[in-house]
Amino acid sequence: MTKVIIAGFKGRMGSTAVDMVKNDNTLELAALVDPFATEKEIDGVPVFNDKADLAGFAADVWVDFTMPSVAYDNTKFALENGFRPVVGTTGFTEAQITELIALSKSKGLGGLIAPNFAIGAILLMEFSQKAAKYFPDVEIIELHHDKKKDAPSGTAVKTAELIKETRTYKKQGAADEVETIAGARGAEFDGMRIHSVRLPGLVAHQEVIFGANGEGLTLRHDSYDRVSFMSGVNIGIKQVMTITELVYGLEHLL
Amino acid sequence: MTKVIIAGFKGRMGSTAVDMVKNDNTLELAALVDPFATEKEIDGVPVFNDKADLAGFAADVWVDFTMPSVAYDNTKFALENGFRPVVGTTGFTEAQITELIALSKSKGLGGLIAPNFAIGAILLMEFSQKAAKYFPDVEIIELHHDKKKDAPSGTAVKTAELIKETRTYKKQGAADEVETIAGARGAEFDGMRIHSVRLPGLVAHQEVIFGANGEGLTLRHDSYDRVSFMSGVNIGIKQVMTITELVYGLEHLL
Amino acid sequence: MTKVIIAGFKGRMGSTAVDMVKNDNTLELAALVDPFATEKEIDGVPVFNDKADLAGFAADVWVDFTMPSVAYDNTKFALENGFRPVVGTTGFTEAQITELIALSKSKGLGGLIAPNFAIGAILLMEFSQKAAKYFPDVEIIELHHDKKKDAPSGTAVKTAELIKETRTYKKQGAADEVETIAGARGAEFDGMRIHSVRLPGLVAHQEVIFGANGEGLTLRHDSYDRVSFMSGVNIGIKQVMTITELVYGLEHLL
Amino acid sequence: MTKVIIAGFKGRMGSTAVDMVKNDNTLELAALVDPFATEKEIDGVPVFNDKADLAGFAADVWVDFTMPSVAYDNTKFALENGFRPVVGTTGFTEAQITELIALSKSKGLGGLIAPNFAIGAILLMEFSQKAAKYFPDVEIIELHHDKKKDAPSGTAVKTAELIKETRTYKKQGAADEVETIAGARGAEFDGMRIHSVRLPGLVAHQEVIFGANGEGLTLRHDSYDRVSFMSGVNIGIKQVMTITELVYGLEHLL
Repeated sequence: MTKVIIAGFKGRMGSTAVDMVKNDNTLELAALVDPFATEKEIDGVPVFNDKADLAGFAADVWVDFTMPSVAYDNTKFALENGFRPVVGTTGFTEAQITELIALSKSKGLGGLIAPNFAIGAILLMEFSQKAAKYFPDVEIIELHHDKKKDAPSGTAVKTAELIKETRTYKKQGAADEVETIAGARGAEFDGMRIHSVRLPGLVAHQEVIFGANGEGLTLRHDSYDRVSFMSGVNIGIKQVMTITELVYGLEHLL
Repeated sequence: MTKVIIAGFKGRMGSTAVDMVKNDNTLELAALVDPFATEKEIDGVPVFNDKADLAGFAADVWVDFTMPSVAYDNTKFALENGFRPVVGTTGFTEAQITELIALSKSKGLGGLIAPNFAIGAILLMEFSQKAAKYFPDVEIIELHHDKKKDAPSGTAVKTAELIKETRTYKKQGAADEVETIAGARGAEFDGMRIHSVRLPGLVAHQEVIFGANGEGLTLRHDSYDRVSFMSGVNIGIKQVMTITELVYGLEHLL
Repeated sequence: MTKVIIAGFKGRMGSTAVDMVKNDNTLELAALVDPFATEKEIDGVPVFNDKADLAGFAADVWVDFTMPSVAYDNTKFALENGFRPVVGTTGFTEAQITELIALSKSKGLGGLIAPNFAIGAILLMEFSQKAAKYFPDVEIIELHHDKKKDAPSGTAVKTAELIKETRTYKKQGAADEVETIAGARGAEFDGMRIHSVRLPGLVAHQEVIFGANGEGLTLRHDSYDRVSFMSGVNIGIKQVMTITELVYGLEHLL
Repeated sequence: MTKVIIAGFKGRMGSTAVDMVKNDNTLELAALVDPFATEKEIDGVPVFNDKADLAGFAADVWVDFTMPSVAYDNTKFALENGFRPVVGTTGFTEAQITELIALSKSKGLGGLIAPNFAIGAILLMEFSQKAAKYFPDVEIIELHHDKKKDAPSGTAVKTAELIKETRTYKKQGAADEVETIAGARGAEFDGMRIHSVRLPGLVAHQEVIFGANGEGLTLRHDSYDRVSFMSGVNIGIKQVMTITELVYGLEHLL
């Protein structure tokens, strides 16, 4: 049984992670941490307000869904105390990540900092990157609820960046194409086109469409609920037990 | 058996129409017309270079896939000689259409001038117009081969115009939305958004996506080949036999 | 302001309807009814356990999301007391519906009994029925979460029944087609084929795919949340104020 | 310039390959072979009826789109004469393939025998196999024109076989699910479900749909025309120049 501490368990991601751990009988919930917790114990699991009280505690993995301001300190604390970190909190600088990787190696402890735990989204990016080697003609359509402010989505831009690494550059569309209404051809990113659809009812969806003579390849990810991140967290917890240094990005554990 | 004359039978649409008529055993190919024809007869069907030679000829329907410069004269000739016109040639002015409708009424002859014979595309527009009454949140994605010059497509703009008639105006997307790359949100048409995808391998496709709280409705038409226009021409031929005036637009016969 | 009573407000649909009425400033929540309610008043709105206490109450519309065992009595009570019924509860016999329609006419009161309030689903059926007139080749794919027991879904069968009314009969597929694994070609309904997909993550989705020479037409409805039924209830409330008899099926008010 | 011989150039695949080679300015058409050819030369390229006449000819690659009955002899001949084979003809036994690989190694010549040159289809299978490691819930929908006799398609079964290798076995659907019309849940293959849609207008399409809590991943390939195989042949020609033994399956060169 892998013993798991969950930091930030009062938040939405943290509490979803608590449910996930409880429902996996190879994992044991060892402790809960949150400065906003008022309980001392929940269903027999000890609750702490301050991470300092966990020094010397017996556990294997430190799952962290806290706040950018404390994520670096928490991760360092985890490694120094023998807990393998699985961190979904954002806000690390490159220098901090480099330092934490060095620390993890010196301790021989596995670890994971992941900006995205949605396995489906990560696979979509990986597959898109591979397909672009053979199909340089590609457009991305991302579809989100209509409360979203920014367009294109961060995931769409990240996907395009990854595709750029493998794709032979090409300006998509006819050389002499004309927009009779501005914006029809979408956002241009390195010759590719990205289109952002915003509608009520939608959650978070992305389609990457490749075209070639006589064929098409379409890859689509639909994300409906944050529960979808939990299979990524689960894989993270299990994989950090088998490696001896911290990695950045869940894709390195797939 | 309805007797059909096909004018412009040497062209791509005209020759496809010849095949369609031959394969429908309720229709009979009565005559073929084309100034570029060198044959006098094909499989027993008389061929003419000049429409004047068809005055007094016994036939029911005049199918016209000729050229904009002669379409008006041809249609008028057809009505004056008792042939019900089914015209796919473009280039009529509104005044010409009004005049031809009046002529058809005076003769009691049915007829059809149709800018689009693709029943699927026409149904897509009709359904979109009805759905927009209940779902004012709508975006259009049209996808074409990457040789296409103009974006958005004429069909997408036409669809948006039809939707506008029934939709309660609304500016699609968040009030404070920001494009971090220009064009991401597509072309704006009356508060709706239209996105144009261009990829090799594609032919002509259109998706109209409606969103509302907790649901979505997506209508899509895929057009792969001009043979798809022929079921519309077939319906036109049969329907003009049952009406007593010329109509503009296949939608009036569906 | 249209005054609305909601019967069964403690249930999931009833409570969602309460929210919808509160958020529409042309509607006023006049009273709440539920035998399981313990409150006497909620936010100033009177709460009743027994419908009998509402005799003589001043309201326009009676929204009913109760139980099959009481729906008929409730609807009759509503009409006799001058409330226009908008009923989402199921379990009416044909004889009961006929009787209630007669009663509504004698009172000159509009009303609605609707087995399905999802406008998107109703439009999908209506559009499918119309498209099938021109495209007799059609297959239905319905996709639901993997806890669903029955296949095909009731909506898919209902859609096929409606299509059957307008479609020229045809056995779908090649005359000599062979299933190398039983069931590959799906369920047969009047020559059409219905396919049922069951996967975790899915909610309730349906695609109706029409094919013809050189083209395809695909109609898809995605239902994510019961909140999607509320626009249908809202339309029902407003439309029953404008008619003078009870109708069965929301499609009659679209 | 890589010099290419095309055997079977009178057939549909062979003639499409001729066009492909002509349109790639890093390739040179060195010779054409076909027992049915009557020409001695086409556009300056020598034409042969018998492969024996090519012994000692100067060329790098032997593209073979001939017939199962001669494919083995042709491939052996190519290797013995220093031509790297790129073979799309089917009908090899396992023993023949083993022997040809051994021969290629002894000569230090690259080569490729590929049952499928559609890169998009091969990527779809590869991606499906990887995704199934994380998403054991999967269903396949394959869609073809309605002249196709067998269901499910060979590609769908092949895809399911590949998925089986990485997927943890699971019987898809609810434990107590019931088909109210037989076949609704499709064909069962190792607990997965395969659905076969047949409609006019369709060509060859396949969708692999993965579902998990709160998310979905859909991979789709659309094949419209045999020209789509040519990018696979092109990659084959270029890759066999860089390897020193024959491989079976284009996936080994992607």
